Amino acid sequence: MSVFQVAGSKSLMIFSGRAYPDLTDEIAEHVGVTVTETTARDFANGETFIKPNESVRGCDAFVIQSFTSPINHWVMETLILLDALKRASAKRITVVAPFFPYARQDKKHRGREPISARLVADLFKTAGADRVMTIDLHTAQIQGFFDGPVDHLFALPLLAAHVAKNYPLDGLTVVSPDTGRVRTAERWADRLGGLPIAFVHKTRDPNVANQVVANRVVGDVAGRLCLLIDDMIDTGGSITKAADLLFENGATDVIVAVTHGIFSPPATESLRNSPIKEVIVTNTLPIRPEQQFDQLTVLSIAKLVGKAIREVFEDGSVTSLFDGQS
Amino acid sequence: MSVFQVAGSKSLMIFSGRAYPDLTDEIAEHVGVTVTETTARDFANGETFIKPNESVRGCDAFVIQSFTSPINHWVMETLILLDALKRASAKRITVVAPFFPYARQDKKHRGREPISARLVADLFKTAGADRVMTIDLHTAQIQGFFDGPVDHLFALPLLAAHVAKNYPLDGLTVVSPDTGRVRTAERWADRLGGLPIAFVHKTRDPNVANQVVANRVVGDVAGRLCLLIDDMIDTGGSITKAADLLFENGATDVIVAVTHGIFSPPATESLRNSPIKEVIVTNTLPIRPEQQFDQLTVLSIAKLVGKAIREVFEDGSVTSLFDGQS
Amino acid sequence: MSVFQVAGSKSLMIFSGRAYPDLTDEIAEHVGVTVTETTARDFANGETFIKPNESVRGCDAFVIQSFTSPINHWVMETLILLDALKRASAKRITVVAPFFPYARQDKKHRGREPISARLVADLFKTAGADRVMTIDLHTAQIQGFFDGPVDHLFALPLLAAHVAKNYPLDGLTVVSPDTGRVRTAERWADRLGGLPIAFVHKTRDPNVANQVVANRVVGDVAGRLCLLIDDMIDTGGSITKAADLLFENGATDVIVAVTHGIFSPPATESLRNSPIKEVIVTNTLPIRPEQQFDQLTVLSIAKLVGKAIREVFEDGSVTSLFDGQS
Amino acid sequence: MSVFQVAGSKSLMIFSGRAYPDLTDEIAEHVGVTVTETTARDFANGETFIKPNESVRGCDAFVIQSFTSPINHWVMETLILLDALKRASAKRITVVAPFFPYARQDKKHRGREPISARLVADLFKTAGADRVMTIDLHTAQIQGFFDGPVDHLFALPLLAAHVAKNYPLDGLTVVSPDTGRVRTAERWADRLGGLPIAFVHKTRDPNVANQVVANRVVGDVAGRLCLLIDDMIDTGGSITKAADLLFENGATDVIVAVTHGIFSPPATESLRNSPIKEVIVTNTLPIRPEQQFDQLTVLSIAKLVGKAIREVFEDGSVTSLFDGQS
Amino acid sequence: MSVFQVAGSKSLMIFSGRAYPDLTDEIAEHVGVTVTETTARDFANGETFIKPNESVRGCDAFVIQSFTSPINHWVMETLILLDALKRASAKRITVVAPFFPYARQDKKHRGREPISARLVADLFKTAGADRVMTIDLHTAQIQGFFDGPVDHLFALPLLAAHVAKNYPLDGLTVVSPDTGRVRTAERWADRLGGLPIAFVHKTRDPNVANQVVANRVVGDVAGRLCLLIDDMIDTGGSITKAADLLFENGATDVIVAVTHGIFSPPATESLRNSPIKEVIVTNTLPIRPEQQFDQLTVLSIAKLVGKAIREVFEDGSVTSLFDGQS
Amino acid sequence: MSVFQVAGSKSLMIFSGRAYPDLTDEIAEHVGVTVTETTARDFANGETFIKPNESVRGCDAFVIQSFTSPINHWVMETLILLDALKRASAKRITVVAPFFPYARQDKKHRGREPISARLVADLFKTAGADRVMTIDLHTAQIQGFFDGPVDHLFALPLLAAHVAKNYPLDGLTVVSPDTGRVRTAERWADRLGGLPIAFVHKTRDPNVANQVVANRVVGDVAGRLCLLIDDMIDTGGSITKAADLLFENGATDVIVAVTHGIFSPPATESLRNSPIKEVIVTNTLPIRPEQQFDQLTVLSIAKLVGKAIREVFEDGSVTSLFDGQS
Repeated sequence: MSVFQVAGSKSLMIFSGRAYPDLTDEIAEHVGVTVTETTARDFANGETFIKPNESVRGCDAFVIQSFTSPINHWVMETLILLDALKRASAKRITVVAPFFPYARQDKKHRGREPISARLVADLFKTAGADRVMTIDLHTAQIQGFFDGPVDHLFALPLLAAHVAKNYPLDGLTVVSPDTGRVRTAERWADRLGGLPIAFVHKTRDPNVANQVVANRVVGDVAGRLCLLIDDMIDTGGSITKAADLLFENGATDVIVAVTHGIFSPPATESLRNSPIKEVIVTNTLPIRPEQQFDQLTVLSIAKLVGKAIREVFEDGSVTSLFDGQS
Repeated sequence: MSVFQVAGSKSLMIFSGRAYPDLTDEIAEHVGVTVTETTARDFANGETFIKPNESVRGCDAFVIQSFTSPINHWVMETLILLDALKRASAKRITVVAPFFPYARQDKKHRGREPISARLVADLFKTAGADRVMTIDLHTAQIQGFFDGPVDHLFALPLLAAHVAKNYPLDGLTVVSPDTGRVRTAERWADRLGGLPIAFVHKTRDPNVANQVVANRVVGDVAGRLCLLIDDMIDTGGSITKAADLLFENGATDVIVAVTHGIFSPPATESLRNSPIKEVIVTNTLPIRPEQQFDQLTVLSIAKLVGKAIREVFEDGSVTSLFDGQS
Repeated sequence: MSVFQVAGSKSLMIFSGRAYPDLTDEIAEHVGVTVTETTARDFANGETFIKPNESVRGCDAFVIQSFTSPINHWVMETLILLDALKRASAKRITVVAPFFPYARQDKKHRGREPISARLVADLFKTAGADRVMTIDLHTAQIQGFFDGPVDHLFALPLLAAHVAKNYPLDGLTVVSPDTGRVRTAERWADRLGGLPIAFVHKTRDPNVANQVVANRVVGDVAGRLCLLIDDMIDTGGSITKAADLLFENGATDVIVAVTHGIFSPPATESLRNSPIKEVIVTNTLPIRPEQQFDQLTVLSIAKLVGKAIREVFEDGSVTSLFDGQS
Repeated sequence: MSVFQVAGSKSLMIFSGRAYPDLTDEIAEHVGVTVTETTARDFANGETFIKPNESVRGCDAFVIQSFTSPINHWVMETLILLDALKRASAKRITVVAPFFPYARQDKKHRGREPISARLVADLFKTAGADRVMTIDLHTAQIQGFFDGPVDHLFALPLLAAHVAKNYPLDGLTVVSPDTGRVRTAERWADRLGGLPIAFVHKTRDPNVANQVVANRVVGDVAGRLCLLIDDMIDTGGSITKAADLLFENGATDVIVAVTHGIFSPPATESLRNSPIKEVIVTNTLPIRPEQQFDQLTVLSIAKLVGKAIREVFEDGSVTSLFDGQS
Repeated sequence: MSVFQVAGSKSLMIFSGRAYPDLTDEIAEHVGVTVTETTARDFANGETFIKPNESVRGCDAFVIQSFTSPINHWVMETLILLDALKRASAKRITVVAPFFPYARQDKKHRGREPISARLVADLFKTAGADRVMTIDLHTAQIQGFFDGPVDHLFALPLLAAHVAKNYPLDGLTVVSPDTGRVRTAERWADRLGGLPIAFVHKTRDPNVANQVVANRVVGDVAGRLCLLIDDMIDTGGSITKAADLLFENGATDVIVAVTHGIFSPPATESLRNSPIKEVIVTNTLPIRPEQQFDQLTVLSIAKLVGKAIREVFEDGSVTSLFDGQS
Repeated sequence: MSVFQVAGSKSLMIFSGRAYPDLTDEIAEHVGVTVTETTARDFANGETFIKPNESVRGCDAFVIQSFTSPINHWVMETLILLDALKRASAKRITVVAPFFPYARQDKKHRGREPISARLVADLFKTAGADRVMTIDLHTAQIQGFFDGPVDHLFALPLLAAHVAKNYPLDGLTVVSPDTGRVRTAERWADRLGGLPIAFVHKTRDPNVANQVVANRVVGDVAGRLCLLIDDMIDTGGSITKAADLLFENGATDVIVAVTHGIFSPPATESLRNSPIKEVIVTNTLPIRPEQQFDQLTVLSIAKLVGKAIREVFEDGSVTSLFDGQS
């Protein structure tokens, strides 16, 4: 017999970086497996070591990492884990990056700038990733930076359901904090049923380069409940300034909904002291205790990611999770 | 003597696809060379043949093609010319695509869609391109689709200078025809000196998928001269609808400025019959006689591209052409 | 449980470009599946959009396209469909190109020419193709242009069976219309049982470059039924001239058998008016109504391709379809 | 039905180069399959031809070759067989190289040298190899030369078991023949239970470049049974000189254990005439009759390789064969 | 000063494999440099070592190797030298292979065959070659196997000049020894001024696979001086059989002209004893003393290759050496 | 004029990561240029931004980074700077990594480990590096991990000159702190004139895995000045233990020489309190004030690196800096 034949099977394994293991555990529970243990440590000079503790031959591997601060450290850890899995004969490797690192460096704003989001996509590929799964990319074009399939999930349905359940929609206006998110505001407005939208416009002094003279609200917000939306809150500056401006323009109240809660200082301080009624985020990034504040609501994307991983593994349809959009 | 050494030199050559040779000639004149002749023809079954008629060994080759209709034909011609140059030992090859083909397919809007702009960038690379030069990409992220240097030029200074020279700026509002170009409107407003901006918002019926109920103008346009801006006009539908809406909302007049004038039917017909006062475009794409109409003004980007090619060849700074932005 | 394991399975899906959907349907019927529907359209400026309408995750995808005129359009459509399938996580993708585009540009005939057949092979690869299936390549070396498996099918058995059934073989001579197809003539002669062969030799004036002085038949054709063979008929010039020459040299009758019927003008006109008795082709390319003529016989390669697709999918042997030759 | 689905299966096939078919047969027997037949021959000008005689579509192919002299010939034969398997649609291809060719050229010792071991790894990859399996690399870093999984097996347990069974360990010292293998000596010492180690130190004349003045034994060997270890014996010079030195330094007896027995002339002659008691090697390379000598013991690695192939095929753990080390 | 700038220069260096150093020396003389010395040796187990003895940083390197028997050895030596040059920072590397190895394995004749000519092209690329220069490829399509520029030179003018000078052309017929070289015969016929052509046709027994029943001459050769042409003579079987057949068919005399004289046994013996008047070859391969025979004339291609190397180095036109054909 | 030709020139530019700018300045001074300024910052969430402040088109760029703690941060900064330079059209990019990051992870010690040194080499390549320059790699095989030229410099001459100048050589023994560096000790012994060598051997309890029972000195050290050598000192554990053992075995004094001074805690504390007379290192890594201690001597490698950069830029010979070794 010159051919030795056996029935085929395929197996799913989940691996976690060390940035936010609780999220991985929660996702894995929705998938229905436990996370495969790894041995991981940092050497005295900062070099990272990570390896899976079980055989991964032939498995469909999902590597979940949350790209929080110190982000360069977690990127390198992820790359090293990908290398270990590739060399250990994993069959297919998907990087699950709920928050895609360096997404804001997605183009050259000025001459000689790097395009770090493309670089990161290439680094994932070089280290061994066949696929990427992510949530609410800063710009959807980043899908095209990776040379392979990207499963792009949306937190909008999750966030919008929370808003719809807790607030009256008929007096609500969706507001973009700057000119770059007006399209997103429009998507929210459509999702919640044809609501009006507005945005903040920064005007500049023509005689002085880059000096912002005044922020103006374009659109009607007086007497309205304003829902400020964005893809992320980092230091919180533009959101809190926008909220102040909305109140100045007669908004009755302001709530905020974003996917990624980075909350770099002084975000927590600023938001805690602002008149914003509620800030709704997801757990794509960990919220450390010192980042918490009273108005904060955190919704979990674990069920969404878990469903998507199962669909990917079982050759189902991720698109179906989003009514055809991806 | 085991080493034969000679002084180094470098040479620039310009090649043209057949889509719009007049533009190439005009650019070449600004560079200070004549276009290298090619032999090009289409065989009976539609297969394209193109080759340079002179030796191109060691040259710094710039291949200029205007991606007008039939666009697939011109993409293939470009790829074949790249292949010929690569195999004929050109030292470095830059594709000059004033209008980048398939730029609007830059992400998956829904599941299972191609990302054709990334595909085209990869095809250029595969065929032999080392670099790309282009003007006003549909989204700036497309720079990151190409694995190599991209010189991204802007027509805004050229277009804005024309507007500033011909219209009073103090009564002018910059208007985006939809929510996706509000950022661009802001750039225009800054360039022209802190002007107000507005945009058109399409509201949808929450009970019927994708059905637009009404278009609303967000921002103040009554009694103002409105400058409608966009990156391109294709069939002209959204521009003419936006113009009508502006007039309905009390605009005193409407002018339009875009970089790429595609003018697919019924654009010319619609614009000719619209109350729009002037439509300003550049010649990144040819304007065929039947596409002409009275209100149309075409500005040439040849000088801009010519300067950029010289800077690239002479290792100067393209960034300097744009005050640091690229 | 850190490993989630399920039984493996594999699934075959067939996709069609829009060039010749009837052929895809016919092939799919032989495979035993229906063609997966796609959404495809051309935008006003000629840009093409195509995507599959069902989930293709994990499938073994066969993309069937017939590269007829306008060939550049269909090449681009194929590349875009490949990109869509790759990004939608198809497991393996085979381009089925019954007629391989640009096959005649398979070498540099003169300096600085492209090798477009290699280019096309690389474009297929770049866009996502893992494998290629094709019929009667212009030169068999094109198999080596693709970096991966190529299933090279032969129409000779199909065509030869038709000849053997309808004509007496003992008075038959196989004739190559030029010096480049004599080897093919020999293969036909062997297949039909040791028949004599002949060819047409173009002599040139030594004093005038490239001027053909006369065509001469080398080999005995007087009093013989001549079977003119070739891989394709494009404009039909060389075939009709060869036929005339054969009659002049005493051939009793002439029949023609080729795999690919391109029939660019004036092929149909010329052949209709020629004394050729029968022209036998396959349906690797569509025959449009205006290309039809009385002497034309079209044999279907659908069964052959369908069988080959099943063998590829089921890890059987395509070689067995051809007695070991591929 | 637009999807045709069948149960999955996977099949293992073993192929052999012609360098040492007996080893392949022995390994295959342990795997439980017969070796798939190939057609192989060398043409008159030395060009090699090799192809599998059965369909290999979809199989998990293991190509076993023993890189003995003429080594360049067997490297090329292996590359050609890999190319044939890749083009014939094998699903996954593993090169099994018990002795990795060119392993000693693993770095630049001086300027402008090649790194041929990396080159060979890249050649395997280019020709179609997805994975490599090998035994006792000259340096373990060579694993990193291949861009993919490498299964690195160890002969130490096999060789050490033979020594432990046949010699008293309490009077034994492990000796490295030069400064480069002291780490390996330490591994042997650990494996056999905390034995003392020693090595030979070549001292050089500081006034004359590269001239070795004297060899000195560092460590205590007087009155001890010395086990000289190394990864390979090529011409045997350093081993026989080291043995002589050990006897001069009072060793009671000397035995030798290495993995790879190259035995280039005058190795056999020198070893036959030396006072070395036993030379223990494995059969990673064939021992031709004229290379035999009385003190030689050859242990088979076939069972080890056979087990490893089964583990790889069945997605088991090769690591488990070595207590976690690979 | 943040930029340190110096005038550019470029330098040419020539390197030789050990297969046929006399040819390299002769070519280098025509270029006007001496060959850069290398250190090269084969280790006891057949592993090859080769490195340049001078710094090669920044040079335009030409590696000349003659692929004679043992061909696998010389292929590997070439690859190792390429690796050394690449790692030593040569700027551009051209492999000069007057006879391209494995050129006859340029397609799959039957299922599961390798395409070794493509493999060799890829190996050259992997090892570091940027360009290839070669003479009279077995099939011109092999140019397309290499992913980069190929300078394809022709020996036809050299060989034809010799024939034209030594033989009366008016009674000469050009003969192809089989159906695969009729096109080449036609090129010769054109070059020499519109001569008649003929070829040998092997007829097979339809009832017995691959059994040749008889060889027939197609075309008129009685009373003619026959010039048998081919790209190479290997064992000489088909040439001597063809010559015999030509004499049987009344040829007055037979001369032979081919580019590559492999002369594997029994070629020399057969040709020496044949009635062939003269066998004209070039020195793309070395003719060893035992391969010599009285009728043999060897023309040197050194001047042609030397000129081509200079043109390539100086960015001149190789095409001009061939009246536009490459 | 279809070709625009100018004299060639080439320009060198030096760029610095932020890890150790003083070293870059010192190297640049030896090269004779100033370091090109960059804009670099870390965003609130740890994302790094870095870009050159001048045009880099066409330059030969050298990027100098010292891979000290936090090492992952500096690796990512380097990759981003490479990306910026590549996209800004630098002609050639060399990463100068005096200490190669992750060099100790150069093989799989056990199953499923990453080979991070190969990964880092691939990341450099992916981000845009054409070449690498480094000093005293942990193992020389790492040269083969990078797909391109690696200039491997040696600090041994620098360190050895210091020892030779300050200590009497006739009573000196070179000692390796473990079995892995005995070869390096031999190189030191040769350089200093045929000195004796010794090493520390860790013996393990055969009954308890990995438990070291005792450290033994192999070789004669009593009454000798011992020079402990290694490639790096990290936490200092093995060096201080070895020194203690040497004193126990009768060494008169101990000095230490290594290339890379990482000095992770508690290295400084341990060394300060040890009886070691002098610790000699180079400045491949910065020595922070708190890492200083009395016995420490730091020699600068700036002149060596500066010379090497000039040789690389001017196509000279780096090998000549090391008597042929690289």
